[in-house]
This record gives sequence, C-alpha cells and structure tokens, in this order.
Amino acid sequence: MTFEEMLAGRVRECESVIRTFLPREEDWPRQRQVLEAMNYSVLAGGKRLRPMFILETCRMYGGRTALAEPFMAALEMIHTYSLVHDDLPCMDNDEYRRGRKTTHAVYGEGMAVLAGDGLLNLAFETAMLSFDRAEGAEELSRCARALQILGRNAGVYGMVGGQCADVEAEDHPDRVDRDLLLFIHKHKTACLIDSGFRIGAVLAGAPEKDIRALEKIAENIGIAFQIQDDILDVTGSLEELGKQAGSDEKDGKVTYVSLYGLERSAEDVRRLSEEALALYDGLEAENGFLRSLIVSLITRKK
Amino acid sequence: MTFEEMLAGRVRECESVIRTFLPREEDWPRQRQVLEAMNYSVLAGGKRLRPMFILETCRMYGGRTALAEPFMAALEMIHTYSLVHDDLPCMDNDEYRRGRKTTHAVYGEGMAVLAGDGLLNLAFETAMLSFDRAEGAEELSRCARALQILGRNAGVYGMVGGQCADVEAEDHPDRVDRDLLLFIHKHKTACLIDSGFRIGAVLAGAPEKDIRALEKIAENIGIAFQIQDDILDVTGSLEELGKQAGSDEKDGKVTYVSLYGLERSAEDVRRLSEEALALYDGLEAENGFLRSLIVSLITRKK
Repeated sequence: MTFEEMLAGRVRECESVIRTFLPREEDWPRQRQVLEAMNYSVLAGGKRLRPMFILETCRMYGGRTALAEPFMAALEMIHTYSLVHDDLPCMDNDEYRRGRKTTHAVYGEGMAVLAGDGLLNLAFETAMLSFDRAEGAEELSRCARALQILGRNAGVYGMVGGQCADVEAEDHPDRVDRDLLLFIHKHKTACLIDSGFRIGAVLAGAPEKDIRALEKIAENIGIAFQIQDDILDVTGSLEELGKQAGSDEKDGKVTYVSLYGLERSAEDVRRLSEEALALYDGLEAENGFLRSLIVSLITRKK
Repeated sequence: MTFEEMLAGRVRECESVIRTFLPREEDWPRQRQVLEAMNYSVLAGGKRLRPMFILETCRMYGGRTALAEPFMAALEMIHTYSLVHDDLPCMDNDEYRRGRKTTHAVYGEGMAVLAGDGLLNLAFETAMLSFDRAEGAEELSRCARALQILGRNAGVYGMVGGQCADVEAEDHPDRVDRDLLLFIHKHKTACLIDSGFRIGAVLAGAPEKDIRALEKIAENIGIAFQIQDDILDVTGSLEELGKQAGSDEKDGKVTYVSLYGLERSAEDVRRLSEEALALYDGLEAENGFLRSLIVSLITRKK
C-alpha cells in the first residue's frame, strides 16, 4: 500500500470517528438551527490531521483507541470553531473556505457566533466522555491530564492567544518582528498540533521523556508548516495552492518570507524539520505511518 | 447580622475567589489585549449568584471549598462570556450593560469575540484545576462529574441551545407559545443555576436523591426568576429596575406576561417557588442562608 492509500484510509477512519460524536439534529428541534450550523462547519471536509495525530500517537504507545476517540472529535471541533469565528465579518471576513460558503454566509452572523460557541463547548463535553470510558483510577487520571492539555492549548495561553497577537499584528504591521511571528505560528498553529501529539501519548501512558519530546516535535512542525505556507504563497501556482499565489503580499501582510527572503525561510523550514525528525527517531516507540505523515507535511508543495 | 449583611459578605467572598483565577495581564504581553478584555468583562460587577450557589451547596453538604473554588470562577466566566457574545452587534447589539460600556464597545468586535472564546475556554481550564486539588480517586471522580455538569449546562443542550431558540423566537414571534418560552427560560437561565446548585453538591458527595431534587429546584427557580423579570418589566418603575419599564412590550417581544397576563404569571411564579421551597425543605442537609437567598430571588421587586 502506498502512503497516499494509507493516508486516505486514515482520513476515512478519523472522519467516521468524528461523525459519531456530532449532534443529531433531528433529536433537538428547538435548537436545530445551531446544530445544523455546527455540523455544516465540521463536515466541510479537510484532512483531519489533528485527530489523526491523536489516533496515531495513541496506537504508537499501545493505548486504547476507545479513550482517544472522544478527544479526536473534540480537537477537530476546536479547530473548526476557530475557523468559524475567524471567518466572521468582524474578523477575517471570509465568504468562502475551500470553495464552500462559510458558516455565517449560510446561517447568518449571530448563528455563526453561537455555532462556534456551541462547538467549543461541545469539544469539552465530548472529551469528557472519555471519563465514562476510563477503566480504573489510572485511566481516569490520564483522561484528566489529556483534557488539561486540550484546554491549555486551545485558550488564551494557546490558540486564542495566538489569534489575539495575529489581530494586533495586522493592525500594526510595523511592530511585526521574527519573535512575534514565531509566537503567532507557535500559538495559532503549533498548539493544536501539540494537542494532537501529546493527548494520544498521555492516554496511552507513554514515557514522560517521550511526551516532552513530542511537545518539541509539534512546535517545530507547526512553525515549519506555517513558514512553508508563506513560501508556497510566493512560489506556488494557483493550481497547486487552490488560492491566488502572492495573496499575502497583496494584503500587505508581514510574513517570515517578507522578513527574511525565500532562501533563509527554506533553510529554517529544513532545520526545524530535521530537528523534529531527529527527535522523532529518538522516541521509545515507532509508527512508520506517522513518520511518513510528518515528512509529507513538511515537504509538501501545496 | 441581617440577610443583606450576610449577602454582602458572601458577594465579597465570591468576588475574591473569582479574582484568584483571572489571568495576570502583565505576565502575557503578546496576548495582553484579549486578557484585558476578558478581565474587563468579568469585573463588571454583579451579584455573583451562580458561584455563590456552588459555594453554599458545597458547604451545605460539608464539602471542601478548595474543590469548589475553581468551579465558582469557571461558572462566572461562562456566564460572563455569554453576556459578551450576547451584546455583540450581530446579536442583541447592546452598547451598555449595567451603565458600563459593553466589551465590544470598548475593545472592538473582533476582540470581543476572542474575549468570549477565551473566557469560555478558560472556564474549562479553570474548572480542571480542581483535578490538581483532588485527593484520591473518589474526589477526582467527583471533579470529573462536576465538570460534565458544567459542560452540559453551558452548551447546545443547555444555555447555547436556549440562546438559539431565543434568536429564532425573536425572528418569528408568531411561533412563540408557552412551551417555547419555558424551553428558553429553562435552557438560557435555569441551566447555569443548575450548575450552581448541583456542582457544589456533587463535589461534596451529597446523596443522589438530593442532587436530583436540586436539579428540579434550580429549574423552578430559573423559570420563576425569568417570569418575575417579565412581570417587573410591566409593573416596575424605572427607579426600581434600572431600565425603562415596558421595554419588552416596546420591542414587541412575546413574554409570559404578554401571553397569560399579570395575574396568571404571578400565580405561576408563586406555584414554581412554593414547589422549589418544599423540595428544598426536604433535602437531607440544611443551609439557612441559601434558603433566604432563594426566597429573596423569587420575591424580588427589582
């Protein structure tokens, strides 16, 4: 089986886990509209990378996937709510995402705010379902720790903090330097990837040393992924990217590439990626598919 | 000591617990703006009723307040985020609340969306701090259950569900009947009161019979409180209410009073309240202050 075939299988697997935890609209007629808006948002497609990281790290350390499943759905709900609120007119004001109307464009702004709130809340409700699946005090305490990681990475000390810095950076492009860009990438992007890597490992009882290494791996991958995004925005063709190349430049957005140029940026992506893979290869457990997935993300051309 | 003096002392106590868990703006310069907006919103004052319910039910059953404290702050954060998002231009579009500028009026719409998201997320992060205070498996499992109650009552099967129904009711006043009004009051208002009553009891290990009774008490109080609100809107003077009497009528809003008239509404408040107090008096534990607090809420004239 090729990596692409394996990946497609894993995407289907994650998709089906996520669907299990989505609300059944028909059972809740009074709040049906917000549930519809939530399901519309989650079912917009995508590679389901973050839940996939949870599943694969859990497997890597021989954990029970029954514990990982609620967290997989929860992390995807958090990712989705952040997109719904990000697309709002008072934020990025996007009418389309992946060629599909955004949530507020279909359901109205008020309902999109509520759908985002509902998804964030449902993410925690869903992750807490792991408590009911835990067998014994040790598993319960792993679930509690995984939940703390999920919460910290999503909030003001994680993703929301990164979004706040991003909003301010757009208002004051003159203040943007390397440290601020790295802060934004780390918090806005790498934090949810960190949830992906560490939650599965924690649930499976991975060694502390590996959990610490996974945190650093996630940080490097998240930042490399974003710099690669900036590079592709300059070099990529419309066909490869699905969006207009050079759109950042057009928006007057300060990026890693606009600060350091293509060569230095590519070099940094390479350095961050090599460091991440070296750490990965030093882990006590193995998962060949996950390694290939990491390599494919870092070397992607679109 | 009069009830009013005791109440003032309890409000101060709750206030000080809540402050302990608020983010320290000065420690997080990159995300300072969203933290400022969050603290501004939480520190707008108010009676801190929901955290007070947690504290008092926890005490009533001899629980450890150390476990209750994170939940007290968490519940107030959830209440606050709901107000911040409710006040947004795409929702109720309110510039003032309790004579003070609303969050988006001060920090802008985008930052108000993020501040609400940050508060909701921080609520769960904060409640999860109880895990670190739990001693032994039994307390850990009580914290997990309390967290599930917190989550369920705040989300689409609770408060957010009520808000969705409320938004639809305002768009379609012709569809509003008694069942829908009761659904909205129960979900939008009573659910967070339920969190107040049940979380403290669960953390303290109250008998299951009492936990079920507290759920019903909270539902009655929440609904009675809202109908009383509608009554006061018609009968109250500007001075007593702090807002223009008759403002619902002016907005063309369908209320319990507009459907059933003042007399029937007052009778229903009385019936719901008596039922709640009868259930309260049948509980296995006692808390005289909490009883007086419930009575004062139901019989309030403003």
